[in-house]
Amino acid sequence: MSGITATGEKRLVLVSGRAHPVLAQEVSEELGVDVLPMDAWDFANGEIYVRYGESVRGADAFVLQSMPAPINQWLMEHLIMIDALKRASAKRVTAIAPSYPYARQDKKHLGREPISARLVADLYETAGIDRMISVDLHAPQVQGYFNSPLDHLMALPILSRYVSEKYGEEDLTVVSPDAGRIRVAEQWAKRLGGVNLAFIHKSRDPKKPNQAIAKRVIGEVDGKTCVLVDDMIDTAGTIVQAVDALTANGAKNVIVATTHPILSDPAAERLRNSGVLEVVCTNTLPVPEEKQFPELTQLSIAPLLARAIRAVFDDGSVTSLFDGEV
Amino acid sequence: MSGITATGEKRLVLVSGRAHPVLAQEVSEELGVDVLPMDAWDFANGEIYVRYGESVRGADAFVLQSMPAPINQWLMEHLIMIDALKRASAKRVTAIAPSYPYARQDKKHLGREPISARLVADLYETAGIDRMISVDLHAPQVQGYFNSPLDHLMALPILSRYVSEKYGEEDLTVVSPDAGRIRVAEQWAKRLGGVNLAFIHKSRDPKKPNQAIAKRVIGEVDGKTCVLVDDMIDTAGTIVQAVDALTANGAKNVIVATTHPILSDPAAERLRNSGVLEVVCTNTLPVPEEKQFPELTQLSIAPLLARAIRAVFDDGSVTSLFDGEV
Amino acid sequence: MSGITATGEKRLVLVSGRAHPVLAQEVSEELGVDVLPMDAWDFANGEIYVRYGESVRGADAFVLQSMPAPINQWLMEHLIMIDALKRASAKRVTAIAPSYPYARQDKKHLGREPISARLVADLYETAGIDRMISVDLHAPQVQGYFNSPLDHLMALPILSRYVSEKYGEEDLTVVSPDAGRIRVAEQWAKRLGGVNLAFIHKSRDPKKPNQAIAKRVIGEVDGKTCVLVDDMIDTAGTIVQAVDALTANGAKNVIVATTHPILSDPAAERLRNSGVLEVVCTNTLPVPEEKQFPELTQLSIAPLLARAIRAVFDDGSVTSLFDGEV
Amino acid sequence: MSGITATGEKRLVLVSGRAHPVLAQEVSEELGVDVLPMDAWDFANGEIYVRYGESVRGADAFVLQSMPAPINQWLMEHLIMIDALKRASAKRVTAIAPSYPYARQDKKHLGREPISARLVADLYETAGIDRMISVDLHAPQVQGYFNSPLDHLMALPILSRYVSEKYGEEDLTVVSPDAGRIRVAEQWAKRLGGVNLAFIHKSRDPKKPNQAIAKRVIGEVDGKTCVLVDDMIDTAGTIVQAVDALTANGAKNVIVATTHPILSDPAAERLRNSGVLEVVCTNTLPVPEEKQFPELTQLSIAPLLARAIRAVFDDGSVTSLFDGEV
Amino acid sequence: MSGITATGEKRLVLVSGRAHPVLAQEVSEELGVDVLPMDAWDFANGEIYVRYGESVRGADAFVLQSMPAPINQWLMEHLIMIDALKRASAKRVTAIAPSYPYARQDKKHLGREPISARLVADLYETAGIDRMISVDLHAPQVQGYFNSPLDHLMALPILSRYVSEKYGEEDLTVVSPDAGRIRVAEQWAKRLGGVNLAFIHKSRDPKKPNQAIAKRVIGEVDGKTCVLVDDMIDTAGTIVQAVDALTANGAKNVIVATTHPILSDPAAERLRNSGVLEVVCTNTLPVPEEKQFPELTQLSIAPLLARAIRAVFDDGSVTSLFDGEV
Amino acid sequence: MSGITATGEKRLVLVSGRAHPVLAQEVSEELGVDVLPMDAWDFANGEIYVRYGESVRGADAFVLQSMPAPINQWLMEHLIMIDALKRASAKRVTAIAPSYPYARQDKKHLGREPISARLVADLYETAGIDRMISVDLHAPQVQGYFNSPLDHLMALPILSRYVSEKYGEEDLTVVSPDAGRIRVAEQWAKRLGGVNLAFIHKSRDPKKPNQAIAKRVIGEVDGKTCVLVDDMIDTAGTIVQAVDALTANGAKNVIVATTHPILSDPAAERLRNSGVLEVVCTNTLPVPEEKQFPELTQLSIAPLLARAIRAVFDDGSVTSLFDGEV
Repeated sequence: MSGITATGEKRLVLVSGRAHPVLAQEVSEELGVDVLPMDAWDFANGEIYVRYGESVRGADAFVLQSMPAPINQWLMEHLIMIDALKRASAKRVTAIAPSYPYARQDKKHLGREPISARLVADLYETAGIDRMISVDLHAPQVQGYFNSPLDHLMALPILSRYVSEKYGEEDLTVVSPDAGRIRVAEQWAKRLGGVNLAFIHKSRDPKKPNQAIAKRVIGEVDGKTCVLVDDMIDTAGTIVQAVDALTANGAKNVIVATTHPILSDPAAERLRNSGVLEVVCTNTLPVPEEKQFPELTQLSIAPLLARAIRAVFDDGSVTSLFDGEV
Repeated sequence: MSGITATGEKRLVLVSGRAHPVLAQEVSEELGVDVLPMDAWDFANGEIYVRYGESVRGADAFVLQSMPAPINQWLMEHLIMIDALKRASAKRVTAIAPSYPYARQDKKHLGREPISARLVADLYETAGIDRMISVDLHAPQVQGYFNSPLDHLMALPILSRYVSEKYGEEDLTVVSPDAGRIRVAEQWAKRLGGVNLAFIHKSRDPKKPNQAIAKRVIGEVDGKTCVLVDDMIDTAGTIVQAVDALTANGAKNVIVATTHPILSDPAAERLRNSGVLEVVCTNTLPVPEEKQFPELTQLSIAPLLARAIRAVFDDGSVTSLFDGEV
Repeated sequence: MSGITATGEKRLVLVSGRAHPVLAQEVSEELGVDVLPMDAWDFANGEIYVRYGESVRGADAFVLQSMPAPINQWLMEHLIMIDALKRASAKRVTAIAPSYPYARQDKKHLGREPISARLVADLYETAGIDRMISVDLHAPQVQGYFNSPLDHLMALPILSRYVSEKYGEEDLTVVSPDAGRIRVAEQWAKRLGGVNLAFIHKSRDPKKPNQAIAKRVIGEVDGKTCVLVDDMIDTAGTIVQAVDALTANGAKNVIVATTHPILSDPAAERLRNSGVLEVVCTNTLPVPEEKQFPELTQLSIAPLLARAIRAVFDDGSVTSLFDGEV
Repeated sequence: MSGITATGEKRLVLVSGRAHPVLAQEVSEELGVDVLPMDAWDFANGEIYVRYGESVRGADAFVLQSMPAPINQWLMEHLIMIDALKRASAKRVTAIAPSYPYARQDKKHLGREPISARLVADLYETAGIDRMISVDLHAPQVQGYFNSPLDHLMALPILSRYVSEKYGEEDLTVVSPDAGRIRVAEQWAKRLGGVNLAFIHKSRDPKKPNQAIAKRVIGEVDGKTCVLVDDMIDTAGTIVQAVDALTANGAKNVIVATTHPILSDPAAERLRNSGVLEVVCTNTLPVPEEKQFPELTQLSIAPLLARAIRAVFDDGSVTSLFDGEV
Repeated sequence: MSGITATGEKRLVLVSGRAHPVLAQEVSEELGVDVLPMDAWDFANGEIYVRYGESVRGADAFVLQSMPAPINQWLMEHLIMIDALKRASAKRVTAIAPSYPYARQDKKHLGREPISARLVADLYETAGIDRMISVDLHAPQVQGYFNSPLDHLMALPILSRYVSEKYGEEDLTVVSPDAGRIRVAEQWAKRLGGVNLAFIHKSRDPKKPNQAIAKRVIGEVDGKTCVLVDDMIDTAGTIVQAVDALTANGAKNVIVATTHPILSDPAAERLRNSGVLEVVCTNTLPVPEEKQFPELTQLSIAPLLARAIRAVFDDGSVTSLFDGEV
Repeated sequence: MSGITATGEKRLVLVSGRAHPVLAQEVSEELGVDVLPMDAWDFANGEIYVRYGESVRGADAFVLQSMPAPINQWLMEHLIMIDALKRASAKRVTAIAPSYPYARQDKKHLGREPISARLVADLYETAGIDRMISVDLHAPQVQGYFNSPLDHLMALPILSRYVSEKYGEEDLTVVSPDAGRIRVAEQWAKRLGGVNLAFIHKSRDPKKPNQAIAKRVIGEVDGKTCVLVDDMIDTAGTIVQAVDALTANGAKNVIVATTHPILSDPAAERLRNSGVLEVVCTNTLPVPEEKQFPELTQLSIAPLLARAIRAVFDDGSVTSLFDGEV
């Protein structure tokens, strides 16, 4: 037969946006591969320029971007980087957005709203991804916004192991700050050995998602060490009201655990003054120096991401990263 | 300028699959338009044949299909009818699936599962819909599975008005049968004038979604008339266990309210024997004669569908059909 | 250059729906590979659940489904299995539908009909196939309904070899049961060594494709052993009328040969009573116990499918499977 | 409500390529609308330039192109005209290709061939059509190559009325020149009042579609006036061999009827010398002066096209153009 | 025929992002229609929320956004607004980006770069536009990045009329600041009555597009009033170097004319100190108070946009807006 | 784990259309691989038939076609060949069009024109390419017409090395024949060691792109050896007028350098009589015997194409083929 034959080979490259270089560095070290060199800067009007410093032709490219404020800047940078990978003939492009942008706008809460979380999925697929990796989606249904395979990683094992080791001797109750997160609280309760469960019944103005009014504690919390769990903490309004409600209902201590520390102002200040014993989170988002406070503990998500990347590259099972949990 | 000009005109046609002719008839009467004649039958091996009896060229076509068992049969009929409308040059095709098929498989509960609810959305868009109408999606995020506009109608006003008129004098508590439905229960509680809220904390084997083990009631139900709410009742296992738990915790009466009466065997028998005072539902799905029982009340969804169809045809606002609620 | 390199590897996996486990088993044995374990069951309302028991990440997956009644059930299962493969990161998905569903609705016979055979192709591509394998399409133009490569296998060599070995000494005439199948009959005639050809001229009501009225035999059949060929036998109405016509015109014997034994009721009974000498078919579709009859011979299509799968996996030529025939 | 409102209006414009200006003129006269002015010429290397002389913004544009040799030139012109209509904001674009290009390459006759008829459908949809009109597709399955609605017109009523009026007193037999056209012959036979049917059994080298070897007449033709029917006549090799075979079998006279007179050399000469009584065709393709011959009768397809255009514009039924026939 | 008929009506609505409310107001006044009310704000992490205050169902929506810094913010807002229009059932969505974002990254200047201008086009089409309006694209080939119709408006008539009226008596020469803009300069020269032409020959480091080194004046400028033209002025580095070069070559006066006043720092300061007589621009972009300077004249683009919107709504010709120029 | 594993292998095949067999042969020799055998011929009406003579299953296929007159014929052949590769299961298809068809119609010069260069890109992607290779696009923005990666090769190093070696001792000035090509002239000037630059200021009727009126020389040419550069020479009208203008302005000698020798009549005659010293071009297009003339030098583009093909196959960097130039 006519033709030239050669053995197929595959090459993993790790690429990172500029939003969270520390996380990229940690993932790079876990994987044992350098982050691919890239020129990137902003034009005076905010337009972003990127160029890769090495060939990515035929590469299995993993392109990591964190999504702190200003989130539209980092999202556009992610899309532009993906376009450049595609046009530079990367064989496969996996976008990694540890904290999914616009995750909360996942439906029309009212008529004439966008569904920005679906729009974001479409923007990624249009830019040229082949697959996606994310951690603790606000609603797991966002998986279905992608046509491409999406590996949905969970920070629960990392966070719960830490809580369990440090507070396992306490009389624990897992608390959901509102009605929408109770399923996650159930998973926490199971993880912590079948402890009790409670939630805060509150009403929320759907047009002002950042603000909420905590109401009543449903379930037993008197004398308990409460583990208040949520997927993200933005301005911490809801969480701090929940802490107040728990304290008012006799909770002994409150620990807050969350995956995504958005910590928009005045979250840090609010939490510092809330009387909470500890706030445990991961580093899917950077927490800048000025937002750090003594009670804050940030656990690295890099080992989880690195294991997922390696499994995807090796065609290994990512399901095992869930420890049998979902 | 060259050309022939004419005034634009639009024409609403109502088309219906064979799954639930009574509902089609009710919608037809509400709208004041006959259901378009259609030949439809099954080949011996199950293949479906359809042909419209009148021209649909240029029509604004609304194609209604209910989704009882055998659901794959009715879904395929819906898709084939849409294909025929498209190829017969209908100007716009709006599919109406009052109960969305495969709504529960809206994410990967475990690795290596499908996301069938997204697949269904893609199948509809591939077949040729321009827009979609559905009632009480299991997860509202399914809205985002469509690129096309989706009008998401709510049966809550219909159901809650009935409950309110009949049981408004009682000391009511709204109960969610599990952790995932509490947000809906909150909307009910608000609708019924700010009554109390409770939920059943249970564990569920994610690989066997039809079976579940009810556990503990969280919230106060002793001496209350409980309104147990869910979007759908399939085999009624979960619901009947919830009724038992509520009774065991001192509930005075239990009323069950749901939008979609799937009522797969042995739901009817279970509910009849559960001691429940009344089961209120809509007719998004037909309940055949042999599954009827004295405590079952079925309210027609046809007026809501007809108003939505008319509003879509007239470019009126569908948001107003929600009574300001979401 | 930055990056981690590894040698590419590929892995064939065989996956099967639940419609025809015997065929899957035969293909599995021919290939020397186990069918991949899969959980699959039906919800009470007919919704299908599937989950693969092993990782398919990076796999070259071949997903086999037969299409007996109830065909919509099996088609939807096929699509859902494909969705799950795609989302579980299979590298390439080849659907195998030995008997293509809705093959007969391949055009608008009348205005305002669907073209279901094209719709089915679109559903497969939407679900996520990369390629397709099928056997003896009702119209070969269905190949063009796919954007993806389609390997169109032919059962003619298998069937004609059997007929030739068993009846090669007879004075044979190949007969087409209607005007649309004469090209296939020509291929049979050539295969059997250039024997004579005849066809039945009949009229068919296009709105009732299952029924037909046989009319006149065109060509010589007096004293001949007639081989009546068709791609599929559904209710056998057409075929049995053809047998009658041939007998009435002096045929010595009639043998029926077909690829797809749909055998919807009352096909088995009709054929048993028709006076036909033998009915030869393949097992692209299962023939349940109660439809078996003494004159029926079912030849396995598994060796052909297995060779095609292996050739696709190895990038070998499938054209050679046609024995130079088309 | 905010906004400016106006009554919708629609405007039909007729646009034509340069391949067959006479046909465009005839359609224009039937419709009572001028052909829209267009600049069009060829660059020296064959690149085509087009520009419309009037605004087509918001228009319901019908763009007609015939497909004689050099067919790739006319096809590209058609595509470029469609692109210009789309970019000039025509509201709807209906392409009219009375003779569908590459209609014969509608499947892979052998491995490693294209399916050019599907490719052509994709090229049209890519260029920007909303719908398609064609006459007597070689295989009706080509309808399914389009996602867009396709109105499939039939020349049979025009041709058969002519034959019936002129030769209705004769003892007619309809003859198919090969096995693949018998279904069309059956429709002719029915049209002509239930006359007899015959066909020519021949073998054809699939790699050389222009050449074929006629063999045996199957059916009765002795003493008959034979109406030899085909959808197109290209080089007339097949047809003339069929005429010879009919004459040799005692046919009294042979009339040839076809929709598409491709008449590639040496068709005109062959037919002139074949002894055929008359060749009846339509003008879906132009027959240049030098290919005319005394026995050739060309009936205008323009009235049929004009009625279809008008029906599409008015949202009337095109099905009625078939006279109830398919 | 079954169905309800009504006369078609169309409704123009004007929607605007938050980047440049003054321009929206001017367009609104020119059109005689209010800007549609919209809620819009930013979450603390930068995520944007929008909701329309009135129904847009069935509307012909024109959605205007200017693109000053921070450009990614305004681009994402534009996309989200388009998504909300689409999901709220607007009939047609026309995006208006008077200054096209990322217009300069319209090709790979070097390997491994993105083509962000194409990416932006894809993002718009993915979000759901039906058509696009823009003014003076950096490269007119960007028109071809859209599948949708794009109306490309030109500010040249507005700018040149102003220059002609004010400086028409002077001895003018049109100057292009670099080799890539000479075609635009030719159009200016023609507009101004066939005056002379010159350009600056410079080298530019393709990796640092904001910086450039002016070199030599090619053409005659001694004693002339030079009109230095460019499509946009960003940091004004190139322009000011051109002014210097012209002055050094004996130019009497320099007037700068541009469509898009990006005026990133330190453009205002540079221009103020450059000795330029006047800087004429449009208001496709807002120039904030602190960047205004005495020599700057901003002409409104609103009349041009309003005429284009009206022509699109009325299906009038937009070509006429070009005054016969291109 | 279930499954059969094998080592991945890749196979380069080179396929060529019939437009320029000499170039295919040169590339084949450079690569050291035979051109894959292919049957290809034209039907009498111009329809093209192709079939590959060997399996291309799993192959990395490079399909080369040159685009001389009649260009639509060769473009369609290219598309049909791509369709056949896709349907024959080639793993990756890279189209090579050394001279991009319809490159000049890359925008709407006037309203109601097509953008044929974008249409061509869409046709290629529809037919099934995975990537594209071209040389010296008329506008580099055409890169952005593709979603697929496009490797844009440059003939400048080949042409300029030749000019430099032969004429490097002369006092050179690079001249652009019009305002649109000056950027290319700048690259030439840099390549030749920083020589001087000039251009011809002319007006061009946008509706007649083949004709143009040269006007004034801007820049110094008196006594110089002028290198007149353009990407393509079609009828040579513009070029010959430029030669005349340079001669009239005192140029010592004129050398013409171009990538694509379209040389439509009467280009050869015009150039032969123009007094030009030498015309240097590549063989991206064939120059037939009758168009050769003594001053014409054709340099082979095959080594450049072969190196690009090899780099794409090996996942090497193509950027290096640019010699660091863009």
